[in-house]
Amino acid sequence: MSSIENNETLRVINERHSVKKYEAGFVMPEEDLTAILTAASEAPSAWNLQHWKFLVIESEADKAKLLPIAYGQSQITDSSVTIAVLGDLEANRNAVIYDQAVEAGHLKPEIRDALVGQINGAYQSPQIARDEAIRNASFASQNIMLAARSLGYDTCPMGGYNPQQLIETFNIPARYIPTLLITVGKAAQPARPAGRFPLSDVVVRGSF
Amino acid sequence: MSSIENNETLRVINERHSVKKYEAGFVMPEEDLTAILTAASEAPSAWNLQHWKFLVIESEADKAKLLPIAYGQSQITDSSVTIAVLGDLEANRNAVIYDQAVEAGHLKPEIRDALVGQINGAYQSPQIARDEAIRNASFASQNIMLAARSLGYDTCPMGGYNPQQLIETFNIPARYIPTLLITVGKAAQPARPAGRFPLSDVVVRGSF
Repeated sequence: MSSIENNETLRVINERHSVKKYEAGFVMPEEDLTAILTAASEAPSAWNLQHWKFLVIESEADKAKLLPIAYGQSQITDSSVTIAVLGDLEANRNAVIYDQAVEAGHLKPEIRDALVGQINGAYQSPQIARDEAIRNASFASQNIMLAARSLGYDTCPMGGYNPQQLIETFNIPARYIPTLLITVGKAAQPARPAGRFPLSDVVVRGSF
Repeated sequence: MSSIENNETLRVINERHSVKKYEAGFVMPEEDLTAILTAASEAPSAWNLQHWKFLVIESEADKAKLLPIAYGQSQITDSSVTIAVLGDLEANRNAVIYDQAVEAGHLKPEIRDALVGQINGAYQSPQIARDEAIRNASFASQNIMLAARSLGYDTCPMGGYNPQQLIETFNIPARYIPTLLITVGKAAQPARPAGRFPLSDVVVRGSF
């Protein structure tokens, strides 16, 4: 393991900033996009339900459709791709992931059944479903931003868009809630550094 | 920038798994904890409002208080620290962060005022405040897990705890919502690998 000074991951975390100006026309190699999406899919999730879906918007035609939904921000057209990170409001259905482990003999069927019962119970609550969709999709979102930076790309997480229009235009099923748009591309201008509150403002040791 | 094969950040993302068994008694050096919390504070956030507070639970006395709140899971006592990641439901108050930029001449006062108006408008909605608290605190949570792994620690994101008891026991102000507990420590046993859905299941190109 690397020391703090030479730590590549800490450097990437520190150097990730929101870039809004991209080299227009830069086509991202498919292997880089795959590496970024793989990193996204490796995020943790509650009950391993993998509450995410990644809608990749990359063609000129699709960018043109997305542009007004994102209020005309030029980063949509100039970046290589925009990844719309969707959270799964019915992630309890993903509990089928346990079946492999049961078949391989790593998980007892009765434990699988107890877990599924617990999950379906929790998913009776729409607020829990929504919170989990946003929470777990956001872990994946952060992986996208860091994986992209580590490969020499920059990103911008965007909350400024019309989610209802996104849903209608890209036929997003009711099962999914848009949680974030992330533009990914080659920076044409560096990010403006954003001030951070000092650690003493955001860390509480022991108790409030 | 590194290639995909030798990319340290992608390796860290891939190797992050949820570890539940820790070397009891391992005291994390203060500089490592600081590096992890610094990485957390470097996450992106909507409007740069930094919707997070990190409650670090590390003393034996505090771990003993946390143990029943987390339903007796031994990872609470055996890990070096638990970081309770709190989301800020009143993050609009953090718009004071813009004042530095105004004072330094990088931001016009009228733009600051327009932003603050827009933010305060959005924060009229409790659902927006809650979604943003969870979303942005989760970006920071993922940084904690990756920074820890990059420094040779392991982590476990925990949703299994009683949030109301956590609030009462650690005097968490009403302004904050618990979004996640993360144990951090030296692994005593490796994580059980968790299956992932293939990319073809979680990626949609272009449109549904």
